[in-house]
Amino acid sequence: MRRVKIVVSYDGTNFFGYQVQPNARTVQGELQRALGKIHKSSSWPITASGRTDTGVHSLGQTIHFDTPLNIPEDRWKRAINAVVPDDIVVVEGSYVREDFHARYHTVGKEYIYRVNTGKEKNVFTRNYSYHLREELCRDAMLEGANHLLGTHNFTSFSSPRTAVVDKVRTIYNLSITNEGAEWTFRYVGSGFLYQMVRILTGTLLEIGKGNMDPLEIPHIIKGEDRALAGPTIPGCGLYLSKVVYSEGDLANLLK
Amino acid sequence: MRRVKIVVSYDGTNFFGYQVQPNARTVQGELQRALGKIHKSSSWPITASGRTDTGVHSLGQTIHFDTPLNIPEDRWKRAINAVVPDDIVVVEGSYVREDFHARYHTVGKEYIYRVNTGKEKNVFTRNYSYHLREELCRDAMLEGANHLLGTHNFTSFSSPRTAVVDKVRTIYNLSITNEGAEWTFRYVGSGFLYQMVRILTGTLLEIGKGNMDPLEIPHIIKGEDRALAGPTIPGCGLYLSKVVYSEGDLANLLK
Repeated sequence: MRRVKIVVSYDGTNFFGYQVQPNARTVQGELQRALGKIHKSSSWPITASGRTDTGVHSLGQTIHFDTPLNIPEDRWKRAINAVVPDDIVVVEGSYVREDFHARYHTVGKEYIYRVNTGKEKNVFTRNYSYHLREELCRDAMLEGANHLLGTHNFTSFSSPRTAVVDKVRTIYNLSITNEGAEWTFRYVGSGFLYQMVRILTGTLLEIGKGNMDPLEIPHIIKGEDRALAGPTIPGCGLYLSKVVYSEGDLANLLK
Repeated sequence: MRRVKIVVSYDGTNFFGYQVQPNARTVQGELQRALGKIHKSSSWPITASGRTDTGVHSLGQTIHFDTPLNIPEDRWKRAINAVVPDDIVVVEGSYVREDFHARYHTVGKEYIYRVNTGKEKNVFTRNYSYHLREELCRDAMLEGANHLLGTHNFTSFSSPRTAVVDKVRTIYNLSITNEGAEWTFRYVGSGFLYQMVRILTGTLLEIGKGNMDPLEIPHIIKGEDRALAGPTIPGCGLYLSKVVYSEGDLANLLK
């Protein structure tokens, strides 16, 4: 058996999230079925860097699986793409050391959250960004973002519906840019808790709208209480962008 | 009764085209149901500038209907947007003369066809542009386009499945631009026959790929035979962009 690592992009719109579940269309379910076809089995087990929720997209979800097949390294991508549905695409495939683990060996992740503040609803971006008919103050959001950088206990910024006990994470970088009404929030961190990026962005948007002061952020962190932070905004604006497995690749992300 | 004109954008992905039909989700069906709600009826009749096929999008479909309601002009847009599904949006609404007709009074239309020649499949644009893994020669396509300009019998460039007898149309402008792998074909004409933009673009792509010579275009036109032209390419790349009702608005389109 050899271990294969693949990087997968998907349009989350028509999936009930990443993780396999009975009677629901999931990314993991579709990928395991596709790899099953290649391995002449009904399903083939895979391990991802982590889950994504319903409607959440991926540019760089990273997955490993073991195979007895002798497919040349440069053919894995094409082989899987020939059998996956059209809202999933493998963008990279390679053999890795047999102790590589897509989940346990992550060193960092990048997430992107897209917000559209256009006055008009745009039918073409409705599943790909969060539409908010509000003016945003970028300076206030940047000041709020500054207080989020570094290592903190992010209990206030994560859903309590999780078995994870250690809520300490590090945010290395948080950029907020816009081209007109199209806003992009980009997070690079050691890892992210359940719904953390959606709650962080939801809180920064409250600051941007003027409903919250950037100086509240340190108090929200200290309070370790989900009720203190802003709302969990929709999954459609969220993209798992990159997963890195070495300090060098993390440093490249932060350049 | 007063006549209302609305301009409607829709994401055609989840519709079986514009025209109402039993047991299928259509743009006209959804709009008639929405207007029915406003008029306390199960449905309310509307007339569009023309049909669009399954998967075809709109930025500027234009529609008229008559109403006994006294809704202020600037509220129609919001009133309809409150009751349509999220893949339809009204972008303009106004009262017009009672003899205005959305179909018979058109002076011109603009269509856009998008093609993506990226090497990788892009899951986020799969429903919004036609993916073609080929290099295209822009100069050859522009030469072909030049032969299409003006007034011709477009029998060769339309589906024979139509009741329309007069196949003479005028193409005022045909531009072909690209930003990297993203190509945009923009057509302004007096009107377009069934599947005409998809067949015109399909033929220009054959020229761009080097499978056909630009000089064949005049012969294809003269032949008046659908079999001579290129393939009918998918509806997902096609956008009904603008419908104009006066020579002045047409001139603005051609600026």
